[in-house]
Amino acid sequence: MSKELDSIMRPQSIAIVGASSKPGTVGNEIVSKLKEYGFAGAMYPVNPKADEICGIKAYKSILEVPSKVDLAVIVVSKDQVFGVIDQCNEKGIKGIVVISAGFKETGAEGVKREEELLAKVRQYGMRMVGPNCLGVINTEQGIKMNATFADALPLAGKTAFTSQSGALGAAILNISKDLDLGISQFVSIGNAADITTETLLDYWKDDQKTEQILLYMESISDPQEFSRLAKQVTKNKPVIAIKGGRSAAGASAASSHTGSLAGADLAADALLKQSGVIRVNSLPEMFDVAEAFANCPVPKGKRVAIMTNAGGPGIMATDAICENGLEIAQLDEETKAYMKSYLPEAASVKNPVDMIASAPLEHYQNTLKALIKDENVDAIMVIYLPLMNLDPMDVSKVIMEIKAENPEKPIVGVIIAKNGFFTRINKIEKNIPFYQYPEPAANAMSKLYAQRVWLERPEGREPSYQVNKNKVTEIISSALKEGRSQLTTLESIDVLDAYGIRTCKYAFAGTVDEAAGQANRIGYPVVMKITSTKISHKTEIGGVIVGINSEEQLRNEYNALLQRLKDKNLQDGFEGVIIQEMVKGNREMVCGVATDPQYGHLMMFGLGGIFVETLKDVAFRVNPVTDIDVKEMVQSVKAYKILQGSRGEQPANIAQIEETMLRLSQLVKDFSFIKELDINPLKISDKTGEGVAVDGRIEVKFDEARKALSGLNLTSSVSS
Amino acid sequence: MSKELDSIMRPQSIAIVGASSKPGTVGNEIVSKLKEYGFAGAMYPVNPKADEICGIKAYKSILEVPSKVDLAVIVVSKDQVFGVIDQCNEKGIKGIVVISAGFKETGAEGVKREEELLAKVRQYGMRMVGPNCLGVINTEQGIKMNATFADALPLAGKTAFTSQSGALGAAILNISKDLDLGISQFVSIGNAADITTETLLDYWKDDQKTEQILLYMESISDPQEFSRLAKQVTKNKPVIAIKGGRSAAGASAASSHTGSLAGADLAADALLKQSGVIRVNSLPEMFDVAEAFANCPVPKGKRVAIMTNAGGPGIMATDAICENGLEIAQLDEETKAYMKSYLPEAASVKNPVDMIASAPLEHYQNTLKALIKDENVDAIMVIYLPLMNLDPMDVSKVIMEIKAENPEKPIVGVIIAKNGFFTRINKIEKNIPFYQYPEPAANAMSKLYAQRVWLERPEGREPSYQVNKNKVTEIISSALKEGRSQLTTLESIDVLDAYGIRTCKYAFAGTVDEAAGQANRIGYPVVMKITSTKISHKTEIGGVIVGINSEEQLRNEYNALLQRLKDKNLQDGFEGVIIQEMVKGNREMVCGVATDPQYGHLMMFGLGGIFVETLKDVAFRVNPVTDIDVKEMVQSVKAYKILQGSRGEQPANIAQIEETMLRLSQLVKDFSFIKELDINPLKISDKTGEGVAVDGRIEVKFDEARKALSGLNLTSSVSS
Repeated sequence: MSKELDSIMRPQSIAIVGASSKPGTVGNEIVSKLKEYGFAGAMYPVNPKADEICGIKAYKSILEVPSKVDLAVIVVSKDQVFGVIDQCNEKGIKGIVVISAGFKETGAEGVKREEELLAKVRQYGMRMVGPNCLGVINTEQGIKMNATFADALPLAGKTAFTSQSGALGAAILNISKDLDLGISQFVSIGNAADITTETLLDYWKDDQKTEQILLYMESISDPQEFSRLAKQVTKNKPVIAIKGGRSAAGASAASSHTGSLAGADLAADALLKQSGVIRVNSLPEMFDVAEAFANCPVPKGKRVAIMTNAGGPGIMATDAICENGLEIAQLDEETKAYMKSYLPEAASVKNPVDMIASAPLEHYQNTLKALIKDENVDAIMVIYLPLMNLDPMDVSKVIMEIKAENPEKPIVGVIIAKNGFFTRINKIEKNIPFYQYPEPAANAMSKLYAQRVWLERPEGREPSYQVNKNKVTEIISSALKEGRSQLTTLESIDVLDAYGIRTCKYAFAGTVDEAAGQANRIGYPVVMKITSTKISHKTEIGGVIVGINSEEQLRNEYNALLQRLKDKNLQDGFEGVIIQEMVKGNREMVCGVATDPQYGHLMMFGLGGIFVETLKDVAFRVNPVTDIDVKEMVQSVKAYKILQGSRGEQPANIAQIEETMLRLSQLVKDFSFIKELDINPLKISDKTGEGVAVDGRIEVKFDEARKALSGLNLTSSVSS
Repeated sequence: MSKELDSIMRPQSIAIVGASSKPGTVGNEIVSKLKEYGFAGAMYPVNPKADEICGIKAYKSILEVPSKVDLAVIVVSKDQVFGVIDQCNEKGIKGIVVISAGFKETGAEGVKREEELLAKVRQYGMRMVGPNCLGVINTEQGIKMNATFADALPLAGKTAFTSQSGALGAAILNISKDLDLGISQFVSIGNAADITTETLLDYWKDDQKTEQILLYMESISDPQEFSRLAKQVTKNKPVIAIKGGRSAAGASAASSHTGSLAGADLAADALLKQSGVIRVNSLPEMFDVAEAFANCPVPKGKRVAIMTNAGGPGIMATDAICENGLEIAQLDEETKAYMKSYLPEAASVKNPVDMIASAPLEHYQNTLKALIKDENVDAIMVIYLPLMNLDPMDVSKVIMEIKAENPEKPIVGVIIAKNGFFTRINKIEKNIPFYQYPEPAANAMSKLYAQRVWLERPEGREPSYQVNKNKVTEIISSALKEGRSQLTTLESIDVLDAYGIRTCKYAFAGTVDEAAGQANRIGYPVVMKITSTKISHKTEIGGVIVGINSEEQLRNEYNALLQRLKDKNLQDGFEGVIIQEMVKGNREMVCGVATDPQYGHLMMFGLGGIFVETLKDVAFRVNPVTDIDVKEMVQSVKAYKILQGSRGEQPANIAQIEETMLRLSQLVKDFSFIKELDINPLKISDKTGEGVAVDGRIEVKFDEARKALSGLNLTSSVSS
């Protein structure tokens, strides 16, 4: 991979095809930016009508360029692109950046044009950035390539950055300079026909100049590949991403609980989480977090010490630190005693350490050193609010000097001063990040800590259980044969059972007499549930009757149910009832699987029963999930406390619940055409603590399922 | 009120007692700031050793000042303050600002000193700002008073501002100038011995130069008074507040559900909400919101139109607008058709309107005018991301010109440019707020809308129900006589019943035979609940047995319960059981009352049962509550959907539930010594939709209750 992208990102020679001598045109901007930024290699503007552009000799055609060319930056009109690429091939060029627009972004015809373009590029063994992009930048000494038409000359640094929006990319480059955020490489991927965010993750993984990666994404073209690569990269370099479209009307027509809760963004959010990507939701947050990573080690833990010269900001910082999931460090007694020795009486040596308004530089020095030494402190926020006595630059320099000698703990500066201070501090070399207010600082610190959690997170495994795959195949085939994509409750429970998921004892009964017989066999109390091919939410028609204590009661309820169906004209599809063991317990969870058109199977776990859709106390992950993913899902819902038995109940068997999720994961990996699956409720037995599937719902994609199972030729009639 | 504070805020003459000619001292800074800022009245520095200070004639003592003095700013040492105030009185001065520190903030002795100071001030009929404060500012022409030692000369404007933290006040004044946020008046209240935030709310209510009010608070000294005044002010002027200490370890020792959920900040948050105060959580948010209110009318609704020259920021704006509870406006077909007439084909005329990168000024003009005209649009966000073609200043000016002609709708500008742009735009007169990113703009817009909601909110009333107050008095007296502050379940339910709250049928039974008799009378199924003076969470010892269907079962359960008590050595305090009607329904809510030491009674409503403390789906308000407060509480919890019957259940009787809350409110108003009260669960009957109190817990403050009820001399033994 590396070698292939080098022709684009580390070229020794660039041809600019469509270069122009007319200022204000893209073809002119590219050449002038390349020149202005000091490209270290050879530049060959190509224009049939010009002899020189921006003072550089121009060529009528790329074929006339006398030397080898590594990269062609193409800015001709969309129709001319194809011919230019043919010539590039003839010339032996392997790297292409297509700035030209007029492809996928313009509709159906453009999509076709882009497909043809990609085919050509693939055929020639080239790699291409674009089309419809802003260009590429590499700030490295010895390369110094700014092949964009953005109005920005970014500073060199350790941050690689790719943007799916060219304009936003330009804005970020522009503002990054204000903020002293140095860039290693920048790629505007445009329509991302060939080179995508994933390609760049792979390339930057090994780039020595790149220590962190920023992504602006509006979609993830290959979620599985993204996740695979991101998992690798993030163990070495933080990846900070904006994924736009969080609120996109995910009005999915899915009818299941899991489906209706799994909006488009939940899938993206889950994928980023599982991949160790640090998600941010705005540009300023991205800048703030990037600045923290650029200037801080990853902390060992989440205990933060605050030192300040004013109480108010100390309170605000405490609030922000707690709200960001970090902790206020309990300072060592020795630290406090030491601080008492030099701080005035009115000062507070309890965290937040308030050195009061009169604090001289020396107090900043002593206190910072003491907090660095304190083993109860993982990270430090130094606040200075300019009062009459000290210049904020002097305070900042003192902090940075101490940081230079003590690089091990993250230190962030919060200087509540006018913008002018930040202009000044950004002009000197920094080794800590500076913020104007405590809140963005606390947020950035929480992301540093999130990276620690990620680094220490075990990789996890996807266990493989002994299951009865054949039985599932049989059940689904049988339903398909009847033209159904929706399994009955009975079939659904049998499928779960075949995969070793704890379901409760049940039996099917087609008549009231059969029902009585089965109930007598299972033992009262029992639950009676309708099974019908037409009804998916049983409770709404009173199709679930619990706590049936006698045969007489059972017969009455059965007849009443039939009457309700008749009244609502829903007899059609009625098959009978399931008589089920009544699992005692009032904790009801839900687990399920939904299918996202782009991300595939989404696993869900959370609080079940009547609360699922109201309280939305659920967690999602993109399948495949590991044991660690599942553990995190279970722990991440608020109802986890209920599972632990927070109010005196029997603690749930968490390991068994996690296994249930992993077995579900295996089920939908094996039967990828399962569209939706709900276990609601997964009832926690008061007796054993186990999660027991007392109801199930499975729907398959009819055509896909038929195709997948057609080779099996299951002719035998299947009963269950 | 006005007149009294005028001597401080609108003085014609100021004596600075403790003025100093030594630069860098507070006594010098005050005089030089007053002079530098151009105070319009007379200044009299007072210093026994100086003839002139900062070029102004100085006096040995305030008594030597030849003319009338309105305001004395006192910067002498803490011990000298008293003598100075005596002299001020002699001189007839009514306004005092005590900058001097060394009072309440320094501990017990300081508290006493401050009490003495206040007593003196009151005795002399003076009003005082401070002690331990930064000073006061009034920017009004004809006054121009900057009597602070803050390193800031704020711009004149329409925003009044008070800070409980002097340092933070200074920082805000300092930064406000960067941001072009003009101040009308500023008061650093310091220890707020006399003049508090409440005093200032009252004063600024009628100040014609003040159009909005900013508060930085660390505590609210008189919550009831604050609420009363804020409710008045906020109907005319937005009040934007930071209340620090959100995360303060509210480790309350309260044992009730309501108590343990009601952290200190919940009370403050509820109070601000009920009073129409717009709460913000950081300084930048405060600035952003203040800028919006300073430059925007309050919108009619929450439908926002976005216009942009780049897709990425449009997506980010959409996300931010939705996440802030606003809506993306559905544009009128006519608007879209019109925009189509001049925008290029690649543009999108659907909201967000993407005019694409090439958009000239004219497109900004036409589109903005069209959106202003569109009746489906309540507010407009105009985004410009500088690309090659337009200067952001030109875009901004065009927007402002159109705004000037069309003042009726809020328009906010989002200019994704470097800081330099903001420096430039802040130097000219603006009529719309400008933000660098969409997120703070969307947040500010949501606060504008919140103000609309507040303005249209009915005032609400506190209904008074016919209740049996005597019965409650009797029950509580009886418990007190037994030395109990905790009522039994039975007593608690009787209290609720006496206040007309729907409780379920029950009876007390002291023996197993009595229990059987009562159950036979009430009718099976019944619930049996332990009553004990020692056990407060009954479920933890299995003290609530539901679904008892027969006498035999009842006797078995009763005996088993006694055995459990013995096993755990909890017989002591056991009184018997309550046999209760079993209300059918699986929706369990909670309502309750907790007591905050400062805010008084806090009302709670939310999701009950085993979920109360785990899911925390509860709302709080400070009592007294109005019918509107209660309505908002009920609607604000997620479980409201469950009450509405979102999944086919019988809709709950919301009016009856609201009334339950109002009756509770009346109960704790009448019996203010009630410390904690829980109704958990308030079960929603499937049959009637009513909320039925099936369990209750009431605890009173023993000494207070005894004192309050002692006059009643209830000697009769009370049974219930």
